[in-house]
Amino acid sequence: MNKHEFSEQHKEGVYQAIFQRRDIRAQFVDTPVPDGLLEKVLRAAHHAPSVGFMQPWNFLVIRDRTTKDKVHQAFKRANKQSAAMFDDERREKYRTFKLEGIREAPVNLLVTCDRSRTGPVVIGRTVQPEMDVYSTVCAVQNLWLAARAEGLGVGWVSIIEERDLREIFDLPDEVVVIAYLCIGFVSHFPERPELEQAGWLPRLNLDELVFYEQWGRKKRQQGS
Amino acid sequence: MNKHEFSEQHKEGVYQAIFQRRDIRAQFVDTPVPDGLLEKVLRAAHHAPSVGFMQPWNFLVIRDRTTKDKVHQAFKRANKQSAAMFDDERREKYRTFKLEGIREAPVNLLVTCDRSRTGPVVIGRTVQPEMDVYSTVCAVQNLWLAARAEGLGVGWVSIIEERDLREIFDLPDEVVVIAYLCIGFVSHFPERPELEQAGWLPRLNLDELVFYEQWGRKKRQQGS
Repeated sequence: MNKHEFSEQHKEGVYQAIFQRRDIRAQFVDTPVPDGLLEKVLRAAHHAPSVGFMQPWNFLVIRDRTTKDKVHQAFKRANKQSAAMFDDERREKYRTFKLEGIREAPVNLLVTCDRSRTGPVVIGRTVQPEMDVYSTVCAVQNLWLAARAEGLGVGWVSIIEERDLREIFDLPDEVVVIAYLCIGFVSHFPERPELEQAGWLPRLNLDELVFYEQWGRKKRQQGS
Repeated sequence: MNKHEFSEQHKEGVYQAIFQRRDIRAQFVDTPVPDGLLEKVLRAAHHAPSVGFMQPWNFLVIRDRTTKDKVHQAFKRANKQSAAMFDDERREKYRTFKLEGIREAPVNLLVTCDRSRTGPVVIGRTVQPEMDVYSTVCAVQNLWLAARAEGLGVGWVSIIEERDLREIFDLPDEVVVIAYLCIGFVSHFPERPELEQAGWLPRLNLDELVFYEQWGRKKRQQGS
């Protein structure tokens, strides 16, 4: 026990959000998402770590049906092209998956990163220029976890060409797309990730992924 | 109220982790981090969302003093080069910041992404190949929040050339560095981000960062 540790209840909340978060595609219901609730999860995103306190993100909220339809068309084009990349057996299975909830989700959210924010030299971004992009991904994960706590489902749709999103939303040159999210209340949160459930890939064993002191060294050495 | 919403206490835990998480550099104490606790936060990382259920991450745990010294040397080189990139006034200020806790933190953690895991064609990575990298960043953020709940501080050191880390840890070609983290118990978690506290940059107003339906449209339109 240390004095900065959360209470048992508060810790439980954090782990529940982490373990019960799901990528939602098929479970959206059409209950409207209140503005105040959306603001809560956006505020969680805004408090992500950001390199050099750059806060490079923007959040574009989409509720308009016509815009969602345009994005869905872009998904369909990318998905057709994507299906063709799998071998025969996997392609059939791939086509059975529902991979987005763009039109069913009451709210869509485009999360972007302004690579020019706060000027050309940023603390912590000098030799790793991709750090602003990573900060924005951290914002997405904050939002995802806060949304789970609120009972809101989130799905990340990555089967869309960035150029299509740039065109639909007329993004400035310095702004890049990080995530296109579908957000809404859900009928249920699946027990397990859907691709695990479907037998597409298994959950890896954590022990196999952890090394000690050197790449590939699996067992922690005595006294290391 | 919806049936998938967490209890008030559990929600509070999630928001506390999000709002009280800090990037720790100067506050590490040398209390050892128990293996079981480290495993808990690694398990939180391992339950991040991953594109196509790819789980592309590895976690390399470093406690060895000699290795930390090598990484610290790499930091010093990159930091010297970085300082030179700021204009005169900012450079003086920059030099006053402590930007890493590599040697003080009992545990260092290299988080990597294996870009070849599960083969060349991955669901959701077909047209946005960077999605595996983003999944790994989500794992870092999960770990960071779980660590905060446990009273463990985490600092992300990004002022190191990737080629130095590749060489020190002899990473295979298909594996890329995502984050070099310092982990340990802390004397305290600062009230606010240190760069905000120091007046380097202000917290942006969330309202200014949220757009509705189109890039740059700030007010939500009636009925949109």
